[in-house]
Amino acid sequence: MTAATTTGPTTSEAERAAMRRALALAATPGRLPGPNPRVGCVLLAPDGGVVAEGFHRGAGTPHAEADALLRARAAAGPDAARGATAVVTLEPCAHRGRTGPCAEALVEAGVARVVFAQPDPNPVAAGGAAVLRDAGIDVVGGLLADEARALNATWTRAMELGRPVVTWKVAASLDGRTAAADGSSRWISSAAARRDAHALRSAVDTVLVGTGTLLADDPALTVRDAATAGAAVSQPLRAVMGRTDVPASARVRGDGAPAGDPGWVHLRTRDPRVALAELWALERRHVLLEGGPRLAAAFWRAGLVDELVVYVAPVLLGAGPAAVADLGITTISDAARLEVTDVTVLEAPGEDTNVRLTLRPRKEG
Amino acid sequence: MTAATTTGPTTSEAERAAMRRALALAATPGRLPGPNPRVGCVLLAPDGGVVAEGFHRGAGTPHAEADALLRARAAAGPDAARGATAVVTLEPCAHRGRTGPCAEALVEAGVARVVFAQPDPNPVAAGGAAVLRDAGIDVVGGLLADEARALNATWTRAMELGRPVVTWKVAASLDGRTAAADGSSRWISSAAARRDAHALRSAVDTVLVGTGTLLADDPALTVRDAATAGAAVSQPLRAVMGRTDVPASARVRGDGAPAGDPGWVHLRTRDPRVALAELWALERRHVLLEGGPRLAAAFWRAGLVDELVVYVAPVLLGAGPAAVADLGITTISDAARLEVTDVTVLEAPGEDTNVRLTLRPRKEG
Repeated sequence: MTAATTTGPTTSEAERAAMRRALALAATPGRLPGPNPRVGCVLLAPDGGVVAEGFHRGAGTPHAEADALLRARAAAGPDAARGATAVVTLEPCAHRGRTGPCAEALVEAGVARVVFAQPDPNPVAAGGAAVLRDAGIDVVGGLLADEARALNATWTRAMELGRPVVTWKVAASLDGRTAAADGSSRWISSAAARRDAHALRSAVDTVLVGTGTLLADDPALTVRDAATAGAAVSQPLRAVMGRTDVPASARVRGDGAPAGDPGWVHLRTRDPRVALAELWALERRHVLLEGGPRLAAAFWRAGLVDELVVYVAPVLLGAGPAAVADLGITTISDAARLEVTDVTVLEAPGEDTNVRLTLRPRKEG
Repeated sequence: MTAATTTGPTTSEAERAAMRRALALAATPGRLPGPNPRVGCVLLAPDGGVVAEGFHRGAGTPHAEADALLRARAAAGPDAARGATAVVTLEPCAHRGRTGPCAEALVEAGVARVVFAQPDPNPVAAGGAAVLRDAGIDVVGGLLADEARALNATWTRAMELGRPVVTWKVAASLDGRTAAADGSSRWISSAAARRDAHALRSAVDTVLVGTGTLLADDPALTVRDAATAGAAVSQPLRAVMGRTDVPASARVRGDGAPAGDPGWVHLRTRDPRVALAELWALERRHVLLEGGPRLAAAFWRAGLVDELVVYVAPVLLGAGPAAVADLGITTISDAARLEVTDVTVLEAPGEDTNVRLTLRPRKEG
């Protein structure tokens, strides 16, 4: 984090109203899938009137600032933004990606002042505020920063970590088992819980399993019968991790997949850090770890699990494979303690009630 | 169940109002512990006015009908109830227990009509309606029967089963373990969950453990730091089951226990049916099964678990003893499926959030 975070007295009521509007623009639904954060921008004239608005619609489309500048010029000519104040939900970027750096574009457009909310947590992209100040532009950061951060909570966390955020999904019986003694497991979870798990897949950009699970279950790893059924569903990248070859017939390959299928990748490593670095290079920000227990335990032991989602089914098995493998814990004082962030009861007519717990590891002092 | 359950057209508005009052009387807090149901009674004069009210205050005290008759006589002399209508929440008993049968007492008092709510589910006590009818008294049963049954749900279930109702308590980690690999388990559950578990103990009349758990943990099995702290706490009978001797130093013996301690009992059997029959003979109606897993599994396999209360702590262990022992289930289609009747989040400032699930076994067609 590089930007100053002065707020309050240094912004006008028009700027604060414009920031609330920019946050609403950033949250516009229907954006393209991709690794970029949601960002909104409002250009204000020196008298406080709105010159133009913009927001980012997803990877490969203009950033919010560029979008607003384009619209200003289309409406009022090349000097439309001269002397204006750019109000933007994220610190303007200083790096050249698929599009040019926004900080330079704002300088070239002749804006006099930039008010932004969240400092850019991206170590590659940070520096926009400094570029702007060097060009003599008045810069204020931190206005409604918490709201802006909440808009891109997972992206922010990933940028800060420098790796994808990892959510570990577990579906188990009341007694912590994922299958009966003979290995059969269809179905422990209710249809409502399975629908919810598909919605969880559609909320991440990568689903990861080990080659052991791949060979045992041959999962497709696609989003099906999600809560979003009917609407366009965002499909995650399907990732398989391990040194074993992926059979030519494996469903994860997605043979016959429709256009827009994000495809699959084989990460030929047993090291969670290496796997996450490879996924980071593929611009992955949020990985859903779906199994098996030993792969998940390797991530846990490496301190690479950021969130745990547990589906508890009202079923007793008494025997069968454990949902969680050895974590290297031998005594209770070493138990992995988590913080419950959500408890949701999943109910549907004619179905067993399942309970979903969302937790995050406690960071020990 | 023996009584006719005609309702509605055959009762007057005064009788229906009296039954609602009798239900409220039955629910009067502060009764003595014991095996008897909550019952209320209102005596109505032929003109619909209230002659007297009564309710049962617990084992060894008058039944509700006797209580109302006593009060009527105290207020208006020996013939106070002659020609009256007795409105009572439970079918009057026909058996001679610690007190004489209520049906006979009503006949002797000269009541002209009896309106009751719940038919007596007790195969020993049933028959009161028939005794009354044989004496020429007009009898109507079933008025607000569901409300009356709800007042004594566990007692009713026990009477129907002819054995104590069994609640199995499990406290486990997210991954279904009761202790770490080295056996240490203090504390997996939060203080809030432990307080809740003590409140659960105070709601039953018997707490049962196996001799294995007794020797391993030496539990006191008393109600401590309950939600009822400060008020008089109802302590359950402490029962130990198994053929192994109970050490002279075992805390379950309650040496130095205060007056009113219900004591302890050693059931020298490994057969759950025998143990429940012995507890039934001791007038026990609700047993809380606290461990260990093998004892609980024996009850489960015998079909003798009526309710399951699971405390889930936000802890992962990865290894250690399983909360639930082998239930004889080998394949998923044989999984023991339960119905979730309640999900409660147990939260307290500065404590881990625990989740309590209450479930009951599904009875297969």
